[in-house]
Amino acid sequence: MRLAGYQTIAGIIRERIASGVYNPGAKIPSIREFAVEFQCNKLTVHRAFELLKQEGLIENRVGSGSYVRFPEQIIGPSAIFDFRSDYLDPSLFPYDKIQTIFNQLFDDKKALALAPSPAEGDPGLIGALSRYYYLPADQMMIISGAQQGLDLVAKVFGTKISEALLFEDPTYPGAISLFKARHFVPLKEDGPDLKYLKDKLQASIRLFYTMPTVHNPTGMAYSLKKKKAISRLAKAYDFYIIEDDCFSEFKNSSTPRFIDLCPDHTIYIKSLSQITVSGIRLGLMVVPKKLYTSFLQAKFSSDIASFGLMQRCMCEFIQQGFLQKHLDTVCSKLNQRRNRLQKVIEDIRHLTWALGQAGYSLWIKSSLPMPVDPVPWSRGEEFSFTPQARSYFRLAFMHMDDDLFERGLDYLKQFLSHPHP
Amino acid sequence: MRLAGYQTIAGIIRERIASGVYNPGAKIPSIREFAVEFQCNKLTVHRAFELLKQEGLIENRVGSGSYVRFPEQIIGPSAIFDFRSDYLDPSLFPYDKIQTIFNQLFDDKKALALAPSPAEGDPGLIGALSRYYYLPADQMMIISGAQQGLDLVAKVFGTKISEALLFEDPTYPGAISLFKARHFVPLKEDGPDLKYLKDKLQASIRLFYTMPTVHNPTGMAYSLKKKKAISRLAKAYDFYIIEDDCFSEFKNSSTPRFIDLCPDHTIYIKSLSQITVSGIRLGLMVVPKKLYTSFLQAKFSSDIASFGLMQRCMCEFIQQGFLQKHLDTVCSKLNQRRNRLQKVIEDIRHLTWALGQAGYSLWIKSSLPMPVDPVPWSRGEEFSFTPQARSYFRLAFMHMDDDLFERGLDYLKQFLSHPHP
Repeated sequence: MRLAGYQTIAGIIRERIASGVYNPGAKIPSIREFAVEFQCNKLTVHRAFELLKQEGLIENRVGSGSYVRFPEQIIGPSAIFDFRSDYLDPSLFPYDKIQTIFNQLFDDKKALALAPSPAEGDPGLIGALSRYYYLPADQMMIISGAQQGLDLVAKVFGTKISEALLFEDPTYPGAISLFKARHFVPLKEDGPDLKYLKDKLQASIRLFYTMPTVHNPTGMAYSLKKKKAISRLAKAYDFYIIEDDCFSEFKNSSTPRFIDLCPDHTIYIKSLSQITVSGIRLGLMVVPKKLYTSFLQAKFSSDIASFGLMQRCMCEFIQQGFLQKHLDTVCSKLNQRRNRLQKVIEDIRHLTWALGQAGYSLWIKSSLPMPVDPVPWSRGEEFSFTPQARSYFRLAFMHMDDDLFERGLDYLKQFLSHPHP
Repeated sequence: MRLAGYQTIAGIIRERIASGVYNPGAKIPSIREFAVEFQCNKLTVHRAFELLKQEGLIENRVGSGSYVRFPEQIIGPSAIFDFRSDYLDPSLFPYDKIQTIFNQLFDDKKALALAPSPAEGDPGLIGALSRYYYLPADQMMIISGAQQGLDLVAKVFGTKISEALLFEDPTYPGAISLFKARHFVPLKEDGPDLKYLKDKLQASIRLFYTMPTVHNPTGMAYSLKKKKAISRLAKAYDFYIIEDDCFSEFKNSSTPRFIDLCPDHTIYIKSLSQITVSGIRLGLMVVPKKLYTSFLQAKFSSDIASFGLMQRCMCEFIQQGFLQKHLDTVCSKLNQRRNRLQKVIEDIRHLTWALGQAGYSLWIKSSLPMPVDPVPWSRGEEFSFTPQARSYFRLAFMHMDDDLFERGLDYLKQFLSHPHP
C-alpha cells in the first residue's frame, strides 16, 4: 500500500474545510489522529498542517490544537495575489467623504450622532435606498450585513431549514455552511433546470435561495422567461424566493427582479458592504407584508438595531450622490480589469469561460486537471458538491490594488501556462 | 353587569403588552374583537386605543390595524418625565472625544478606518477591556450589544431554551420575552432562595440568568456567601451561570464575580451601550473555554463581526482614559440624583425602598394601590408574574437632563402624594 504524501493529506483536509466538514472556528483532529486515519507517520501530517497554515486555512492555538480559520482571516503567501476575495479594493472607496459626513453628523447635533436607530432601520436611509433601488420602503429593513439577512431567514423559518431550503448548484459557500445545505438544483445557462426544480418542489421545499442577477460564482443571469416561470411556481407551490441581489449595480439591463415579479413570495437581500467596503456591515432586506412583523421581531431579538451612525452616514452618502460616483468608478475599473484578465485567459489553450458574465469575478473552465497546490483563486468545489465543479475555478479581480493586480496577471500567466498534473 | 370602562380596558391591554402576551411588533386584536371580548361598545375600545397610542405603547398602520411598538420607540406624553429608560442622559456623554478619535482613525490610515474586524472582535479593544475589567482576553468576544449575547446563548443552547433557562424573579423584561421564560427563582435580599433554586435544578435547568452585582430592577447585590453557594451548585449540577454584569462600574465593592469564582461555568455578558450611549451597540462576553468555538461560530453566522470602526474607537476611548473620566462624571451625577430622589420618596408615607441599591434606578414599594393611568415609571409587573410585584415600581433617574429631572421630581411629588384608587 502506498502511503499518502503530505500534499494529498493537505488536499483532503482542504476539501473538508471547503465543504464544511470542518467549519470555520472548529478544532480539527490532531496530528496523531490524522496519522492514524491516513496510515502515515506524524511528520507527514505535520508537513500538511504547515502547508495549510501557510495558506492561512488553519491556525495553531498553543496547548489546544489546530483550528479552521474564519474566511475573513484567511491570508497567506498564496494570497499575496488575492483572486479570491469578492470584496472591493479598499483604496477605491472615498473614505474622505465618509469622514466629512461623520463630522457633519457630529457637528450638526452631537447627541444625535450616536442616537439609536429604530429596529427596522434609520427612516432616512430606508427612504434613500427605496428611491435608489426602486424598492418599497414600508417592507424594508436595514440589517447588519447580508449574512444577518440569511440568519433572520433561519430564525423566522425555524430550525428544520436545511430540509426546507433549495440552493442553486453551484452557490455561495457561506450559505451552504450556514444552512447545512442538502437540496440543490443544477443551473443551466439561463437559470435553473425547471424540470428538476419542479421535482424538488414536490417535497418539503419552502424556500429557494438564488442570485438571479449576477450569480455567484458563475457571473450569469437568469433569463426573464425563467424568472417568470419560477415566479409562477412560487405562487403555485407557495414557496419563498430568497433573492440575493448582489452586484446588480453593474448590470445595464432593466430585467425585472423577483421582487418586482412576485413581491408576495420574495425575500429580497442586498449587501451594502460588497459595493462599498466590507467593514461597514450594512445591508437591506425587503420582505413580504405578511412576514414583516416576524422578521422585525427576529431582527430586534438579534441585536435591537443596526449601528445608527453608520446608517445615517450611508444615507448622506447616497443622497449627496457619492454612492453613484463611487459605483461609476468601480464600474469603469471593473470593465478594464475584466478585459485584461480575459485576454490573459484567452492565451491559455486549456481554459475557457462563458460570455456575458458580470460582477467582480470570472468563472473559468479548465480542460486539464487543476493544481491542488496553494492556489490564489477559489476552487470550483468550494461552490458545489458535484464532481464537474472540479474543472472550474473563480478568479475574483477587484480586491487587489492596481499594482498588485498587474503583477497578479503576470503570475497567473506563468502559473496557468504550466498546468500541474 | 357593569361594563368595563376605557381605562380598565387600556389597563388590561397594557398588562398583556408588559407580560409579553402581545409582543413588540405584533398586531393586537381589532377594536371589534376587543369589544366582543370585553362586552362593551366599540367607542370604549377606541378610547382605550387612543390612550395607549398617547402613551406610545401601540401604533396604527393604515389599513392594517394596531401594533405593539418596540420598547425603544415608546415615547408619549407620560414619558415627558421619563423615569423608565435605563440608558444614560445622552448629554452626559463626551461626543467630542468620539469625534476626535474618529478623525484620528481616518487620518492615521484611511483604508483601515472601515476595515472589517475579526469575528471575535478587534484585538486592541479586547486587550483594553481585558485590562479594564480584569477578564481573560482569550475567552472574550465583542458583541453587537448585550442583547446579541443573549441571542448567541439561545443559538448555542438550542431551541428548547425556555425549558432549560432559570430566571430571577423579578428580572429584566427583555430576557423574559426573548426566551419565553417559564422558570423563575424568587430573590431574597442577598440573592436567590437557595432551597428553591436546588429544587429547580433537579429538573431540566441548564442555564441560570442572573444580574448579581447590580440587579435589575431591584438594584440589590448577591452576598458573597450566596455567590459561592451557587458556584458550588453550578459545578455539582453542571449548569451555566449567565452573569449579566450591568452597572458594576458604580459599585465600590471588590466582591468576586461568578466569572472569578467559577469561570468554567460562567457566561459573562456586559453591555457597553448602557454605560456610554445606547446607539453604539457594543458589548462583550466571556465564555468558558470549551464553549468558545461554538459561540464564535454563532457570532460569525449572525453578522460576521461587529462594526470595526466603533470597536477601534472604543479601544482608544478606553486607552486614552476617557471611559474612566466619563464614568466618574456619571457616578457623581448618579449619587446626587439618587439622594434627591430618595428625599422625595421619604416624604411620601406609603412609599418605602430598600437600602443599598445601586445602578440607574430605585425600586420602590407602595403600601397603597398604584395608579394604572399612564405612569412615567416602569411598573413592577413588567419585571415579574407574581402578584406581589404589583406593589412595586422602578424609577430610573439617569435618562433625563438636569432640568427635566428637577421638574420630574416636582411632578413625582404631586403625582405620588395623591395616590389614585
